[in-house]
Amino acid sequence: MKQISLILLFFSSILNARFADDAVVFAGNANKELAQEIAHHLGTELGEAKVGRFNDGEINIQLLTNVRQKDVYIIQSICPTQKYSVNDMLVELFLLIRTIKRSSARSITVVIPYYGYARQDRKTTPRVPVAAADMAFMIESAGINRVLTIDLHCGQIQGFFRHIPVDNLYAAPLFARYCLHKSLTNIVVVSPDAGGVERAQRFQSHLHNLGIEASFALISKQRAQAGVIDSMKLIGAVEGCTAIIVDDMCDTGGTIVKAAELLKEQGAQKVIVVITHPVFSKNALQTVGNSVIDRMIITNTIPLRGELPTNISCISVAPLLAEAMKRTQNGESVSALF
Amino acid sequence: MKQISLILLFFSSILNARFADDAVVFAGNANKELAQEIAHHLGTELGEAKVGRFNDGEINIQLLTNVRQKDVYIIQSICPTQKYSVNDMLVELFLLIRTIKRSSARSITVVIPYYGYARQDRKTTPRVPVAAADMAFMIESAGINRVLTIDLHCGQIQGFFRHIPVDNLYAAPLFARYCLHKSLTNIVVVSPDAGGVERAQRFQSHLHNLGIEASFALISKQRAQAGVIDSMKLIGAVEGCTAIIVDDMCDTGGTIVKAAELLKEQGAQKVIVVITHPVFSKNALQTVGNSVIDRMIITNTIPLRGELPTNISCISVAPLLAEAMKRTQNGESVSALF
Amino acid sequence: MKQISLILLFFSSILNARFADDAVVFAGNANKELAQEIAHHLGTELGEAKVGRFNDGEINIQLLTNVRQKDVYIIQSICPTQKYSVNDMLVELFLLIRTIKRSSARSITVVIPYYGYARQDRKTTPRVPVAAADMAFMIESAGINRVLTIDLHCGQIQGFFRHIPVDNLYAAPLFARYCLHKSLTNIVVVSPDAGGVERAQRFQSHLHNLGIEASFALISKQRAQAGVIDSMKLIGAVEGCTAIIVDDMCDTGGTIVKAAELLKEQGAQKVIVVITHPVFSKNALQTVGNSVIDRMIITNTIPLRGELPTNISCISVAPLLAEAMKRTQNGESVSALF
Amino acid sequence: MKQISLILLFFSSILNARFADDAVVFAGNANKELAQEIAHHLGTELGEAKVGRFNDGEINIQLLTNVRQKDVYIIQSICPTQKYSVNDMLVELFLLIRTIKRSSARSITVVIPYYGYARQDRKTTPRVPVAAADMAFMIESAGINRVLTIDLHCGQIQGFFRHIPVDNLYAAPLFARYCLHKSLTNIVVVSPDAGGVERAQRFQSHLHNLGIEASFALISKQRAQAGVIDSMKLIGAVEGCTAIIVDDMCDTGGTIVKAAELLKEQGAQKVIVVITHPVFSKNALQTVGNSVIDRMIITNTIPLRGELPTNISCISVAPLLAEAMKRTQNGESVSALF
Amino acid sequence: MKQISLILLFFSSILNARFADDAVVFAGNANKELAQEIAHHLGTELGEAKVGRFNDGEINIQLLTNVRQKDVYIIQSICPTQKYSVNDMLVELFLLIRTIKRSSARSITVVIPYYGYARQDRKTTPRVPVAAADMAFMIESAGINRVLTIDLHCGQIQGFFRHIPVDNLYAAPLFARYCLHKSLTNIVVVSPDAGGVERAQRFQSHLHNLGIEASFALISKQRAQAGVIDSMKLIGAVEGCTAIIVDDMCDTGGTIVKAAELLKEQGAQKVIVVITHPVFSKNALQTVGNSVIDRMIITNTIPLRGELPTNISCISVAPLLAEAMKRTQNGESVSALF
Amino acid sequence: MKQISLILLFFSSILNARFADDAVVFAGNANKELAQEIAHHLGTELGEAKVGRFNDGEINIQLLTNVRQKDVYIIQSICPTQKYSVNDMLVELFLLIRTIKRSSARSITVVIPYYGYARQDRKTTPRVPVAAADMAFMIESAGINRVLTIDLHCGQIQGFFRHIPVDNLYAAPLFARYCLHKSLTNIVVVSPDAGGVERAQRFQSHLHNLGIEASFALISKQRAQAGVIDSMKLIGAVEGCTAIIVDDMCDTGGTIVKAAELLKEQGAQKVIVVITHPVFSKNALQTVGNSVIDRMIITNTIPLRGELPTNISCISVAPLLAEAMKRTQNGESVSALF
Repeated sequence: MKQISLILLFFSSILNARFADDAVVFAGNANKELAQEIAHHLGTELGEAKVGRFNDGEINIQLLTNVRQKDVYIIQSICPTQKYSVNDMLVELFLLIRTIKRSSARSITVVIPYYGYARQDRKTTPRVPVAAADMAFMIESAGINRVLTIDLHCGQIQGFFRHIPVDNLYAAPLFARYCLHKSLTNIVVVSPDAGGVERAQRFQSHLHNLGIEASFALISKQRAQAGVIDSMKLIGAVEGCTAIIVDDMCDTGGTIVKAAELLKEQGAQKVIVVITHPVFSKNALQTVGNSVIDRMIITNTIPLRGELPTNISCISVAPLLAEAMKRTQNGESVSALF
Repeated sequence: MKQISLILLFFSSILNARFADDAVVFAGNANKELAQEIAHHLGTELGEAKVGRFNDGEINIQLLTNVRQKDVYIIQSICPTQKYSVNDMLVELFLLIRTIKRSSARSITVVIPYYGYARQDRKTTPRVPVAAADMAFMIESAGINRVLTIDLHCGQIQGFFRHIPVDNLYAAPLFARYCLHKSLTNIVVVSPDAGGVERAQRFQSHLHNLGIEASFALISKQRAQAGVIDSMKLIGAVEGCTAIIVDDMCDTGGTIVKAAELLKEQGAQKVIVVITHPVFSKNALQTVGNSVIDRMIITNTIPLRGELPTNISCISVAPLLAEAMKRTQNGESVSALF
Repeated sequence: MKQISLILLFFSSILNARFADDAVVFAGNANKELAQEIAHHLGTELGEAKVGRFNDGEINIQLLTNVRQKDVYIIQSICPTQKYSVNDMLVELFLLIRTIKRSSARSITVVIPYYGYARQDRKTTPRVPVAAADMAFMIESAGINRVLTIDLHCGQIQGFFRHIPVDNLYAAPLFARYCLHKSLTNIVVVSPDAGGVERAQRFQSHLHNLGIEASFALISKQRAQAGVIDSMKLIGAVEGCTAIIVDDMCDTGGTIVKAAELLKEQGAQKVIVVITHPVFSKNALQTVGNSVIDRMIITNTIPLRGELPTNISCISVAPLLAEAMKRTQNGESVSALF
Repeated sequence: MKQISLILLFFSSILNARFADDAVVFAGNANKELAQEIAHHLGTELGEAKVGRFNDGEINIQLLTNVRQKDVYIIQSICPTQKYSVNDMLVELFLLIRTIKRSSARSITVVIPYYGYARQDRKTTPRVPVAAADMAFMIESAGINRVLTIDLHCGQIQGFFRHIPVDNLYAAPLFARYCLHKSLTNIVVVSPDAGGVERAQRFQSHLHNLGIEASFALISKQRAQAGVIDSMKLIGAVEGCTAIIVDDMCDTGGTIVKAAELLKEQGAQKVIVVITHPVFSKNALQTVGNSVIDRMIITNTIPLRGELPTNISCISVAPLLAEAMKRTQNGESVSALF
Repeated sequence: MKQISLILLFFSSILNARFADDAVVFAGNANKELAQEIAHHLGTELGEAKVGRFNDGEINIQLLTNVRQKDVYIIQSICPTQKYSVNDMLVELFLLIRTIKRSSARSITVVIPYYGYARQDRKTTPRVPVAAADMAFMIESAGINRVLTIDLHCGQIQGFFRHIPVDNLYAAPLFARYCLHKSLTNIVVVSPDAGGVERAQRFQSHLHNLGIEASFALISKQRAQAGVIDSMKLIGAVEGCTAIIVDDMCDTGGTIVKAAELLKEQGAQKVIVVITHPVFSKNALQTVGNSVIDRMIITNTIPLRGELPTNISCISVAPLLAEAMKRTQNGESVSALF
Repeated sequence: MKQISLILLFFSSILNARFADDAVVFAGNANKELAQEIAHHLGTELGEAKVGRFNDGEINIQLLTNVRQKDVYIIQSICPTQKYSVNDMLVELFLLIRTIKRSSARSITVVIPYYGYARQDRKTTPRVPVAAADMAFMIESAGINRVLTIDLHCGQIQGFFRHIPVDNLYAAPLFARYCLHKSLTNIVVVSPDAGGVERAQRFQSHLHNLGIEASFALISKQRAQAGVIDSMKLIGAVEGCTAIIVDDMCDTGGTIVKAAELLKEQGAQKVIVVITHPVFSKNALQTVGNSVIDRMIITNTIPLRGELPTNISCISVAPLLAEAMKRTQNGESVSALF
């Protein structure tokens, strides 16, 4: 994928530096490949650690690298993998933190490329959990010093962490750069629902920063009459344009594909989708692969559980995370990356 | 205001019951009138408490009513008043909690009709506070058992409280009932910005529940070319309709008045604004009073600091809060009120 | 199983009483059947709650029963099930607690028939977690008031909970009663390893309390010469006796079967195994079913993931737990059950 | 004021050193001038930070200087200013701490020249707050590492901070030096009330350390008969002496002026008042200016809200605080300054 | 002691009531007799508990009375006894709290007649503990709900407890009543040092409340010249009067005896000393017994470790504490006792 | 004692290094000699601190060495001494921690050679404390960063500390080396009771690591018939062997002496006892001195309160602790010492 490598140049400066001697980077089972890639960008190796299972499925952890007085980084998304459930990955993270804490580390920074349970961020009906807050509580109280993450589902999650800093990086500049590289013009940025309007408008402004002016449209759910299912309605115009649907994650793919169909019906010449977190539940990969979507750009915050169809491209967040970790370690501004 | 009293009937059932004997209700200086009204609806009197000032402006509190083994309710919005700043009201609340806690109360429920600092709910730029979370932390750790509030600026604030329940009531049913009573038809619900789309659509569905079908429109901020200020653009159509702008609060009134003007330009027959929290900074009352807005409906979660112009009506939330407090005290479902 | 129903008579007195009106009992997915049985013994129904999954595997909880001002009991073992991993069940428990807490319950008692991760109760090598303590921390800080459990792997786990009481019930009296009912004589109680000596001797003394004198033996692991695997050695004599191996749990069954074989070699007439927690990893059911073990008695603290072979019998702990919950609710001594 | 500059020489040694590179000093709105002066003494500049207000009076903070891995100092008295209430300054401090904490500072030292709410340090009647303790709780739990302050109203406030060190500096040596410089003789140190006896005697001993022997007198409030107001009575003799009234703060000035009058009546030749914290509520400046007090010496822990009358002189605590901050940063003993 | 029994009548009303059924009162080894007396006044028996020692001196606790869902009261001064050190009594208290907490009590109220370590309430020199605050922290965090005590050395100790109420009773009314009963006249209330002035003046006002007018004097320590020891000086006049020295505690008795001698030298006709807490270290009993003190009145907050000399009388605080405990249990105002 | 000095060579490498400049080591009254010895091995001096008593027995602490920004180590066993009770030593430790914390230390490592109250590690009967956990809570929450200890009575105590690392060193290698040096052969390692089997088998494996093969035996308590006291029974054979009884502590010595007698009866040629913690309550020294025990090897984790009889030898743990402290300070692996 030629275009992707060009994008990497953006961060090429970091490739020369070695990561600090007094830092150790561990990974759980959620993003082993991404973690390797980050370590490579840091010019270091991952710390040795056994993160396996006992016969009964209980997590079996042993750190082989000494962490006494070290600044430790744990890379672990809260997501399902081929082999494990999202809760397995969460408990792995919890136990890794506790183990490192009891092993006399100087500090613990948790790098969570995909912060799961984020959509349960408020009580939409009575007596449901605010799971995104509860997970923040669990992880924070385990004893960490800092969180590094990308494209939190909502910014308020930073506030769910009570006493520690959360650096929330953005993938939007990577996506905007992709659009620049592809010389896309006549763009309409589309929010696939009401909740995503702010995110889409932020993307619009990232394009603007690169000199690309785009207009904006919104897909609104129409409350149906009794006995009729909800339908989508486009607010704004996309005729003859390149429509770019912006969302933070793609779950089963159903809604996004319907949105793409609506845009095509309304005359969009091309439908591009940019998605940070490829949750891809059920047969999402096929759903997207067989759809009218011309191209979907994702990142590798969540490991893929199948072959990518030809209309999906993946940009790595490893250089971005590596740079942020390096700045964290050196006391340099991370927000300069925003 | 005849229409308002009709709406009150909705809660008339509660007027007959007396509040529990083992409960005491106190009020700080933020909403004394509202608190009196709530006490009246509960069939009780406010607990006696001095909440004054020493010569140097330090808060001077003394409870005169015994609270030992009582369930105590404190009514206090986090808002500026005629006399005091928003921070004064916040610290009053903090000290009231602490005093009651040290006086052996059995439980403390904080009733916060307007939860201030709510708009600072995430970091929109680096190195700013997440003040909405920080205030939740301050209030919760002071030692309370429960929060009762109305129309939180965003639902995630419930998650900012870590260990205690937050019951977030809605004013929307009161506003929807107003529309029903006024026999409004041909309604377009309008969100004045991207962030308010969800709130506006919830209102749309409250209308739906009362049998009133309304369509939806959104006002979108247009990012301007260099040297040109941002402009508003309507997405959707309001021609010949009654446009109802829905928002949770009105600060200086500037934006809302511009939105109303845009709607009129686009052919709206009538522009109604429903607003839960009348923050009304600067000369907001005049700004709204002199505007094209046909009618603005507000509630009394924040005390007014001036005369209401003729195009503003106020609905009291006292019956709603009183009912929720009674249910809280009796262990009945509060969510049944939603 | 006739013998089992007789044992139930021990608790028959409780069948007449109804559980308190101000209590609600919920169950996660770990022990639904056991929970139903407990509810039956309490003369009540389980509270209604949805504890499902979203498409991406995130837990999806909604309580349908109001819990405001109620004493809530959650029944959930920390164990794998047919469908879910042990971590899934742990996170379910965590989120159930959080949800109930945020829903204004008066108190939360967590009933954990099998407390998983218990074997990771100290650091046997450097840089491993003390997972049994970490889980206690996670569960306690979620906001509970009390834990009720059976046969903790080690008593110190009570101390891992810092501020709340943990009532640890014993299954041994149930097993001892079984031996009495079966008129077993000439008994040697056998500890299958050094760590279980105390547990086995406690069982010996439970037999003693019922008038059954038994002698004691220990199986000791022999540290092997280089290149040779460890072997077992019996310390004590079992010839012509009924050997009863006592353990708190059976994982893969491998060790216990080897122990049984050794006892038979040493002349034991009959080998009975009593096990509280049937972890039964891998193909433990077959391993035990095809072994020389004459009878294994287990309880239902963990749901079975297959058919029981004919040489395994199961005693229900539901009456025991129900009685303890009733006493907890009524402020009666639970230790009287020990 | 010639005498004051001489006193400054006491600390001149510090003027040569630069403050550590990994430290940043911020100031809220309470003591901006003092903070500038401290920064000057440290050979550094204040960190850039916006600490303003939104339209509705909510505090609007943004740090412009990066604080990642820095040792941060916040200078903020808890006092009213020309523009803001004492609670405004308190909440500013709270939010500054929270913002810095969330911005990954290495440590936070709060420099509170005047610790407000200090007089509410115990419950003199039932159901009043122990506000001095509650404020300590609020500030400490916001997440700081250390407090630096001057002349706490009572020493126990150090104990109100539970887990962090509080360095309480004394202004007494500055005042004693003033007396030495002025060659005062025949001194009687006077406590204006019972609660101040210890403080006055400490000052007496500071004089002693400089070779100035002084005697001691106490003004005692006489409990009046019914219907008669309390009167003051001098215990001890001041005839022909220079009476120096010592107090930690001057609020409205009423009591201190009455005390001075009593001393003059009793034959004091000259009445000097030394006061660390010039709270100066209401028209205290005039009250003192028009009084028999020959000279009042204050410090600049609280910004003045008016012109100083000619009988008041001000000594700056900036050199003292700067030195203490430098020692804190370098790990040198601060108590050596006492 | 006839006069003492008369004083008891003050509380006679409580003798008729029985203490609540859902309350249990335990005592450690510090005040067993006082605890028995309190139980008697409450019309109940002390809960059964073994509070002994193992061979190596470790405390050996077992509660024999069930405390599940009970309101538990622990009576324990923090003081040395005949047999144990003050730290032994402190750790007994800590472990009693922890044991009761782990035994499912509903609430724990700690009754501390003498709160030891109280004189270490601030840092008088660098690098000393604020032990009075540290002990409050230890006791509070052990998990209690409330503290009941008498005549705290300084009121700020209430603030050292962060989240729980501390009811501080006063013995002064008992002493004032004694003076009334003895028809004392021509009284001068004397503070034995600067720190006690407030306490003495409070006593003066208690006398005033009973219609006894008294004047006031202060003994001031005179800082000595080099090589000369400090001397005492009386500020005020006592000639021909009955001087009543008021203090909260008497340690070795040395200072109080010297003060009495000074008063006699200055012409006092009679010297009476009222002391709440008879710490009586070293041979204090003899020191007082052989002194010029005409009568010392103490209470029984600390058990005596020897025979009382004839010039010391003891008033029991049992009725006062019993009444306060009863009010606490019933949710009645305790401050009404002040 | 020649053999002991040889053993010291094991650690001789550390004698050359000096301890870090930014570290200070303090000692309470529990192990002053051991602390001196450790300081000597570290090539440093103990920090100056007064840890005395006031007249009433309250602990009187003042640090004379500045600890600002230092890494502080406190050496204090929780044990009785000649002069003080175990609780006195515990409270000394607590107050030392608090004082150092309030004096701005950078970190606090508590070195507890003997962790008292360890045997109360679970609830063996209802309503007893889990004192070992409660002490961990008290010490941890006082504000420490790390614990360093030797041969915890049970490994779970590490888990009683919730958020800090606990490094548990082993004395077994020292004892095993002693056996090697003495060329002991034909060894049977004996556990004196069921609870000690694991400890004894660990010792067996330490011998194995040095090339010494030993067999294993267990002494089992026989539950007696009614009216008959419990008796001991040997499980395994010791005839003609050197029996080495392994235990972590020796309290009154009664049980260990009976065990030794049983072993001699069963034909043991020689009985050696290795004990890490010489609690030696009552007249344990005589009991052991007059017994059949051929040699008892102890360490100096607890100061002796009498003359050692000739059959007891003492190995110092000072070199081991000094090495661990040095590694802690330098961020080197401490587990490499295990």
